[in-house]
Amino acid sequence: MRLYKEFLESAIKNDPSFKNKLEVFLYPGFWALVYYKISRFFYLKNCYFISRLFMEMGKFFTNIEIHPGAVIGKRLFIDHGFGVVIGETATIGDDVVIYHGVTLGATGKEKGKRHPNIGNNVLIGAGAKVLGNINVGDNVKIGANATVLKDVLNGKTVTGIYK
Amino acid sequence: MRLYKEFLESAIKNDPSFKNKLEVFLYPGFWALVYYKISRFFYLKNCYFISRLFMEMGKFFTNIEIHPGAVIGKRLFIDHGFGVVIGETATIGDDVVIYHGVTLGATGKEKGKRHPNIGNNVLIGAGAKVLGNINVGDNVKIGANATVLKDVLNGKTVTGIYK
Amino acid sequence: MRLYKEFLESAIKNDPSFKNKLEVFLYPGFWALVYYKISRFFYLKNCYFISRLFMEMGKFFTNIEIHPGAVIGKRLFIDHGFGVVIGETATIGDDVVIYHGVTLGATGKEKGKRHPNIGNNVLIGAGAKVLGNINVGDNVKIGANATVLKDVLNGKTVTGIYK
Repeated sequence: MRLYKEFLESAIKNDPSFKNKLEVFLYPGFWALVYYKISRFFYLKNCYFISRLFMEMGKFFTNIEIHPGAVIGKRLFIDHGFGVVIGETATIGDDVVIYHGVTLGATGKEKGKRHPNIGNNVLIGAGAKVLGNINVGDNVKIGANATVLKDVLNGKTVTGIYK
Repeated sequence: MRLYKEFLESAIKNDPSFKNKLEVFLYPGFWALVYYKISRFFYLKNCYFISRLFMEMGKFFTNIEIHPGAVIGKRLFIDHGFGVVIGETATIGDDVVIYHGVTLGATGKEKGKRHPNIGNNVLIGAGAKVLGNINVGDNVKIGANATVLKDVLNGKTVTGIYK
Repeated sequence: MRLYKEFLESAIKNDPSFKNKLEVFLYPGFWALVYYKISRFFYLKNCYFISRLFMEMGKFFTNIEIHPGAVIGKRLFIDHGFGVVIGETATIGDDVVIYHGVTLGATGKEKGKRHPNIGNNVLIGAGAKVLGNINVGDNVKIGANATVLKDVLNGKTVTGIYK
């Protein structure tokens, strides 16, 4: 219920084509969060197989993969959603907007904590890849198809390969 | 029926691995257009919820999202199709070929008309993002993974970040 | 069975979040290979429609498209998998790791053999597009969102537009 209210709030704020309160239930980004919550519940109880099962179900129905190990703030708005991947050790602040094709992933060079930390009020454009255990500050904008491999300071806008 | 004939024509022209007329029914790009037509029918009647329902169904079955508000020319050929997003105020000319991962999207800075206009006979490579209320001319080729943020003149080929 | 063992081996090696042997059956990358084998069986018997049917089914369930004409080595590990497209005349060596959003595709300028050859032990990052009849050597690493349009020598790492 809280999830519904939060999502409604962010849909109205972020999607100019949003027209009707019931439409929330048609957004894959909403269902992805529902599956994430269930998957995370089992993950925190160390039921990894069931947890992964719900993760893969969510993935099948929404085309969005949020690993149950990721820590997510309030009002995350994933728009369109195809092919979004959020890794096991990623953290995301409040009021973040993520478009389709975004990856919060690993570089393959790190063990343990290997995914990024995203601040509050960050916007990540379609197709952008944010990789490695890096910190992306508050109010950052990441351009479409950008590849981000190092820390980004608060308020900055980054595009292209940022390393 | 016209849709079938048009799609068949473009499949033969654009997909070298095409082998059999019945295969048209196996192309997600074909079904995406069918769902778009249904969704657009309800959109033009202001039945936004039903319209969005068909849009989301099409998205689920084809992994292609065409907003019913978009205006699309003849013989649009979307190949492979995963993660294609075509925004509400986009317009597309005739004989356009769009590969998977392409977005005709918004930058978030514009209100109202905020998606691109694509000319005739344009080819948009896999993963390319064309953003904002810009004009892409006729016979343009946009390279794979390109990010296009300003007008493109007739006949031009663009790659990388074009702004 | 051999497929299961091989996939298990590569999952343990390549995915730090892998926790349980049964999880293999939850990986779209595993099922994509199963559908590919079936689809290829009919393709080699010239039953192109049935072959394409299985290819499209695999695509629907896994979001990974492997054309049955492609030749694939041992222990291919496709992680996450959304929107991976492997073209008809592509060849892939052993121990290759491919992330989501990767395309082994064509440029549209070549006929017949028009997709790349990938060597052994190659890693291809999320969103990378490798296009045309080019050779990618052994032990190559291709960065996230890279666009590769010419041969890559053994052991090299490439990022951005490589042409």
